[in-house]
Amino acid sequence: MPKYVDIAQDIEQWIKDQDLLQGTKLANITTLADQYAVSKNTILKTLQVLEERGVIYQVQGSGIFVRRNKRRGYISLIQNKGFSDDLQMADEASVVITLASVPATKEIALNLQCALESSVYLVERVHSIRGQVFCFEQSYYTKELVPFLSQAIVEESIFDYLEKGLQLQIGFSDKYLKIIPAKDQIAKHLALQPKDPVLFIEEVYYTTNGKPFDFSKNYYHPEYSQFFIQS
Amino acid sequence: MPKYVDIAQDIEQWIKDQDLLQGTKLANITTLADQYAVSKNTILKTLQVLEERGVIYQVQGSGIFVRRNKRRGYISLIQNKGFSDDLQMADEASVVITLASVPATKEIALNLQCALESSVYLVERVHSIRGQVFCFEQSYYTKELVPFLSQAIVEESIFDYLEKGLQLQIGFSDKYLKIIPAKDQIAKHLALQPKDPVLFIEEVYYTTNGKPFDFSKNYYHPEYSQFFIQS
Repeated sequence: MPKYVDIAQDIEQWIKDQDLLQGTKLANITTLADQYAVSKNTILKTLQVLEERGVIYQVQGSGIFVRRNKRRGYISLIQNKGFSDDLQMADEASVVITLASVPATKEIALNLQCALESSVYLVERVHSIRGQVFCFEQSYYTKELVPFLSQAIVEESIFDYLEKGLQLQIGFSDKYLKIIPAKDQIAKHLALQPKDPVLFIEEVYYTTNGKPFDFSKNYYHPEYSQFFIQS
Repeated sequence: MPKYVDIAQDIEQWIKDQDLLQGTKLANITTLADQYAVSKNTILKTLQVLEERGVIYQVQGSGIFVRRNKRRGYISLIQNKGFSDDLQMADEASVVITLASVPATKEIALNLQCALESSVYLVERVHSIRGQVFCFEQSYYTKELVPFLSQAIVEESIFDYLEKGLQLQIGFSDKYLKIIPAKDQIAKHLALQPKDPVLFIEEVYYTTNGKPFDFSKNYYHPEYSQFFIQS
């Protein structure tokens, strides 16, 4: 992990430990550089990471301030950059239900820009937090970019494997949200009644070259899921 | 409007008119600078705007490409920067139901960081698209930063007035999403049955100095609202 990401993680943890309020002024760049014994340039990169993560905001000519209006228990809808949100998600558990190769339907082929009927990976997982299931996930991976997945891999962080194992450069994502009535299978996984409303989020993840590699359909429990977006 | 925003708008419109597909390669920076008779620096700023808006992506050493996976009829959940999304929202209409001064409740005071019971503006609007109501909005504005609102202002774009009229520097926002059952009044505005599920989005908008000026509660119709996030 690059030094500036390490420092960002350290500062974020420190803000949490100290329970600093939104608007609290932090040390300036020179002081932070001295404190961590790194260049100002490294601190500038650190601040960029923290700003992207919604941990701080910078006011020109005035300083660096804590941004901390996140409410507890809300799931971020913005792609995490730099490092995972382990701390917030400490109580999260995922169970793999399915790992299989399936032929691409029209919908999958369109989203993954692969040939109809070509073989893609399907990973189905159920995510829970403090023992409560809040999400049923169906993810499809194109074999052109993800030629191999195993039970061991999908039980850990798939994105970690893609980045570190496959050296995939993860670029951007499109996410689509709407409320839909739960179909029988979905309702069952989420312990809901059929036709109960669920938040349905479709996601397409692209490499930095603009190639889609992951198309996911996520079904969220209406009571146990809430989300935030910092922009 | 700065030149680079003008050019961004022009390029975005051109991509739509030509109906270019995702991944289509655009002209390079030198060609664009010649074409618009501006400096390369201006084009670099233009490209940044287009990238933030999810209209293009840049691949280092390879070029500029069309990013265009937005589905029609989806509402962006990321704050627009630079210029409004008039084109996508051409069929949108808003009706002002309430413009009043009300005392800040605990919830409002907390979100707007103002004194309990202090006077704040309340604006209630109903938004429809192609004649179909899809959103009921309750927005509160702190008078510390928004000392004056009128019927004429709230019938137009409030944010335009804040930026141009009040010279407010709009910085960042926090948004919180969840599904809730509609209360009677909300259900009525959205032509739903009481307790029908609605998507509830709370938003807090801050100036670049980190001061909150707008706290909004938005209730979206489950069938006529869908959202996208590009990140």
